[in-house]
Amino acid sequence: MKRIPSVLGFARFVTLAALLVLGAHAQAQTDALPSWNDGAAKKAIVEFVQATTTQGSPKFVPPEARIATFDNDGTLWAEQPMYFQLLFALDRVKTLAPQHPEWKDKEPFASLLKGDVKGALAGGERAMLDIIMATHAGMTTEEFEQIVQEWVATAKHPVTKRPYTEMVYQPMLEVLAYLRANGFKTFIVSGGGIEFMRPWVERVYGVPPEQVIGSSIKTQFEWRDGKPVLVRLPAVNFIDDKTGKPVGINEHIGRRPIAAFGNSDGDLEMLQWTTAGRGARLALLVHHTDAEREWAYDRQSSIGRLDQALDAAQARAWTVVSMKDDWKRIFPFEP
Amino acid sequence: MKRIPSVLGFARFVTLAALLVLGAHAQAQTDALPSWNDGAAKKAIVEFVQATTTQGSPKFVPPEARIATFDNDGTLWAEQPMYFQLLFALDRVKTLAPQHPEWKDKEPFASLLKGDVKGALAGGERAMLDIIMATHAGMTTEEFEQIVQEWVATAKHPVTKRPYTEMVYQPMLEVLAYLRANGFKTFIVSGGGIEFMRPWVERVYGVPPEQVIGSSIKTQFEWRDGKPVLVRLPAVNFIDDKTGKPVGINEHIGRRPIAAFGNSDGDLEMLQWTTAGRGARLALLVHHTDAEREWAYDRQSSIGRLDQALDAAQARAWTVVSMKDDWKRIFPFEP
Repeated sequence: MKRIPSVLGFARFVTLAALLVLGAHAQAQTDALPSWNDGAAKKAIVEFVQATTTQGSPKFVPPEARIATFDNDGTLWAEQPMYFQLLFALDRVKTLAPQHPEWKDKEPFASLLKGDVKGALAGGERAMLDIIMATHAGMTTEEFEQIVQEWVATAKHPVTKRPYTEMVYQPMLEVLAYLRANGFKTFIVSGGGIEFMRPWVERVYGVPPEQVIGSSIKTQFEWRDGKPVLVRLPAVNFIDDKTGKPVGINEHIGRRPIAAFGNSDGDLEMLQWTTAGRGARLALLVHHTDAEREWAYDRQSSIGRLDQALDAAQARAWTVVSMKDDWKRIFPFEP
Repeated sequence: MKRIPSVLGFARFVTLAALLVLGAHAQAQTDALPSWNDGAAKKAIVEFVQATTTQGSPKFVPPEARIATFDNDGTLWAEQPMYFQLLFALDRVKTLAPQHPEWKDKEPFASLLKGDVKGALAGGERAMLDIIMATHAGMTTEEFEQIVQEWVATAKHPVTKRPYTEMVYQPMLEVLAYLRANGFKTFIVSGGGIEFMRPWVERVYGVPPEQVIGSSIKTQFEWRDGKPVLVRLPAVNFIDDKTGKPVGINEHIGRRPIAAFGNSDGDLEMLQWTTAGRGARLALLVHHTDAEREWAYDRQSSIGRLDQALDAAQARAWTVVSMKDDWKRIFPFEP
């Protein structure tokens, strides 16, 4: 009988270890959103996930239909003092200027190179398009990916001096992970450039390139040095903003999301489209209310304006997150 | 010491059972393509999968990069006597004719309604576009999905009298399942309509809507009866054929496939794009060589023409499947 206790003891140890692991897991599940203060917003997220993923719940949704879409600028990462992709474009103008002596006398480049961003953008949509096309087109898709990778690895935010990919919202990273742990497929649906996001979103958000939807320019299949390439053309292909978001979602996903997260009027139609489906729905707006830890802006802002969508949220009882009140921590680098 | 043997015996039994299960699994793996005859094509597929999924193999590919793309018409399901989506459109013309008395005197509809398909299509691309737009546009995306579902559930192939979704290739269903069982993400990349495929490909091929790429018409976000809808407009958005396939793949997936399956010149650029990447690659063409069990056609066919791509396959040693020689069974309904 001598060895039996040790065999049984080992079995007991294994069982105990398993229980501890499972217990820790259950504990982790109840605490999937540690950077969120207890409140209506956190409650709405957790209750939605529990209702849609619990077998037998009247709101149960099968895994293949658990589609969640997230805006990027102002929802997953910051967008002040201006959209980060615009800061990328401005950096590119400076880098490319030596190859374009004509820019010295040509707007919007002349103003930009003098450091006068406001003057450059005074040209409106035309000026913006000129900047985008001069910096985003003319190369192959692989060359552009390389350019973005290098910028993301080296550029620093003008205020915090942090890499841009650290300017992401810790509470939203937790929501992404929490949804995926519960069988959701998470997509990004951004007004930003699809090829500007794909090089880094998998590492930063855990979202693979095939789950990114964004604005795009046209590309063309060509042969260069005996190799097939896709060349980025100076022509708009798709604008993934406002009414474009449901269009882009339909084109890329082909089913209606059951949860959508945004922060501005550009997300209004995505939230309307999402909540118009039957069954449990979650529509959430991140409200930038924290001038101290981040920025505070809404109805009057030229960047990330939240006006009509805020009215819609109030009228339709969508979840509105106050960054100041609902988030314990905003950026991962905070102590 | 009395109970030790039984404890050890139980352990031995568990080990034995585990080995049996693992053995059966290994057996199932070697037989993942039961409808394929042993030959170069089957060997190429199996060796590619083993090389890319075996840890430590010099050709190992991490799961997230295991992207495989499949053409649909002529690669996953049949395309004779004409593309099935065209047969769908012709059925729709007949159904809609009572609401369009003017079609009696208007080509290409007049010929179609007299049963003269050839005469109707004599009008070339213009005639084809007129038919597509009259039958595919003007309704919401949800209404169109319903129309496709009903057609797929009731329409029968003119030759075999089988539902169209039974006219799929059993050996290719096995390839799809085999790749997925080995961590691949399988995508459809078809010249056919993206919204024509999505309603049934998940059930038939196990490919979810978000992994379908195809040709499309434009859609527009609108409000109808107080609900947001996407209305299908009579305007081409994207043609996912020939050079369009790499463009569509880049737009939807954002990474280069490592395996691509096609059957016609429309797939040539997809295969070129796929094989131009570094590391292990699989490019495969289904060659329609079986006039008895399916159809035999290639260089001279107006549907699914395989001419330039066949030359490319020979020059570049891509895998060419002879349906007659490589496939034991073609359709799942065969005895």
